[in-house]
Amino acid sequence: MTRDHHQSREDRLIADYFRPLAHHAGAFALEDDAAALTPPPNCDFVLTKDAIVSGIHFFVDDGPGDIARKALRVNLSDLAAKGADPAGFLLALALPDAADDAFLRAFADGLSADSDAFHCPLLGGDTVRTDGPLMVSITCVGTVPHGRMVRRRGAQPGDRVVVTGTIGDAALGLLLRQDSVWAETWGMSVTDAQTLVARYRVPQPRNTIAPVVRAHASAAMDVSDGFVGDLAKLCAVSGVSARIAAASVPLSGAARVAITRQPHLFETALTGGDDYEVLCTVPETAWPAFQTAAAAASVSVTAVGVIEEGTHAPVIEGEGGRPLAFGRTSFSHF
Amino acid sequence: MTRDHHQSREDRLIADYFRPLAHHAGAFALEDDAAALTPPPNCDFVLTKDAIVSGIHFFVDDGPGDIARKALRVNLSDLAAKGADPAGFLLALALPDAADDAFLRAFADGLSADSDAFHCPLLGGDTVRTDGPLMVSITCVGTVPHGRMVRRRGAQPGDRVVVTGTIGDAALGLLLRQDSVWAETWGMSVTDAQTLVARYRVPQPRNTIAPVVRAHASAAMDVSDGFVGDLAKLCAVSGVSARIAAASVPLSGAARVAITRQPHLFETALTGGDDYEVLCTVPETAWPAFQTAAAAASVSVTAVGVIEEGTHAPVIEGEGGRPLAFGRTSFSHF
Repeated sequence: MTRDHHQSREDRLIADYFRPLAHHAGAFALEDDAAALTPPPNCDFVLTKDAIVSGIHFFVDDGPGDIARKALRVNLSDLAAKGADPAGFLLALALPDAADDAFLRAFADGLSADSDAFHCPLLGGDTVRTDGPLMVSITCVGTVPHGRMVRRRGAQPGDRVVVTGTIGDAALGLLLRQDSVWAETWGMSVTDAQTLVARYRVPQPRNTIAPVVRAHASAAMDVSDGFVGDLAKLCAVSGVSARIAAASVPLSGAARVAITRQPHLFETALTGGDDYEVLCTVPETAWPAFQTAAAAASVSVTAVGVIEEGTHAPVIEGEGGRPLAFGRTSFSHF
Repeated sequence: MTRDHHQSREDRLIADYFRPLAHHAGAFALEDDAAALTPPPNCDFVLTKDAIVSGIHFFVDDGPGDIARKALRVNLSDLAAKGADPAGFLLALALPDAADDAFLRAFADGLSADSDAFHCPLLGGDTVRTDGPLMVSITCVGTVPHGRMVRRRGAQPGDRVVVTGTIGDAALGLLLRQDSVWAETWGMSVTDAQTLVARYRVPQPRNTIAPVVRAHASAAMDVSDGFVGDLAKLCAVSGVSARIAAASVPLSGAARVAITRQPHLFETALTGGDDYEVLCTVPETAWPAFQTAAAAASVSVTAVGVIEEGTHAPVIEGEGGRPLAFGRTSFSHF
């Protein structure tokens, strides 16, 4: 009985692929059962957990590196919206037998690149075998000054409703990913189509804006299930309503091409989800400072409406102030 | 469009089944994207993440409440071995379509009972649909005084090797669960057989001993993959070896019945895993205080050997000091 005989495949996976990502001192090089995190002075930890499943949240034939990056980024997006700075993450990976070394090499490389880019080291986790689809479950840990996590609750009548980036790209990208013929139907360039698909495949969380959200927003969440439905959730928890000018919702050039050709896609854009943009409410007095700080963080922000009193669902106003009615307001896998 | 229309099945699952478990103030009644945890003064957070998959870590027809309790308890066991007190947990649940309301009701009831019993409230999580088997991924958060997480590294020559409870019950219970005919072969009473199966189905983490481990152990881990292999891992990380008296390894009465009939089952007991007992090393000077404190915590502890210098694999001595050789030292699902 030599020591080598003790090394299971899981031990080898950890050593070969994941230990290089675990450079945080509290990860103990993944040699222990748990990680230890010492909180910065006067800070709280913010914890979020999102899982993605093959065939549900990504395509079976998506690149392994992209799958890894999406799994981490959907969690980083939650931290951004909560005004929290990334501290690290834990990874549970359910691997089907088909996940070979080439898959794991590419998966770990993608994860490593984003772990570095977002300053979010691997702290620990678990690798298990599954007879089902690949599943990546990540718990992300962030830090905020004590009591300063930005909540969904807190929006006040008169606050501006603000979103980062553009809305709807990922929902249109998903359609293109499902059937590339849509690009022709929409009269869309190859580049535009690729841009939209890329927005679905690997979201761009807005972590550089987290300190700005923390400093100025009265409430915030990330847009994952669709702008209209997520805004409704934020309003419900805050006990308010909202009025949104549909024409002010920021759209990318590529999304405009599609929507111009098929106007009903505007509903898809506003309700389809997978945006991973920050949706927040900003008091009127803080709006100038918010804009300045967001620009300094290189994140585009757009005011799309205003919080109002009431408990009715947010009103999305189309041309001439006519309220738009949507068949559904957000996406659910159930 | 009324507010009710916004409620997806996931929203309803959270409201009906999981919100009652989320009474920690920082869980925000699961109405937010993340939880906020304020560390107790001068404490570190300890984070551990273990996932279990249907058909791999439990049986498809195990009771939903037992599945939930096992998922939480395997994580609580890690906290116990690290000397950490539970603070809360996050839950990612991948649900096949077959998981109906009756399943979820029983799952949540089991989880709730253990969440209360171990003072470990639900902080947040994610529920996703899967076309594959049920998977439960839990991240458990604990607290220790700053710098006091008990690591696998730290065992010193001369330290006693100590285990809690009894070893091997779950490995034998798994055999019985796979084929109940073993009970007859082993000449075992129904009660004994049920005891062993129960030890496999729902482990008993030793969280009451966490403060004792923290105060006195030089190194610790929980026994999940098998006593012999896990001891080898602890020794490897600590840069030491160990000498164990096989006859001193604590066995339950039920396990003794089986091993008396079929002596080769002793290897199964020592290498089969799923014990979820604490394995730790205790300096000789601290051993009396460790025993006293463990008794006060109502946890049985047994000294089974001693840490020695060297980097060779731990030696398990049988009758007359003869080293035992095992075909395998620990269990791996890969």
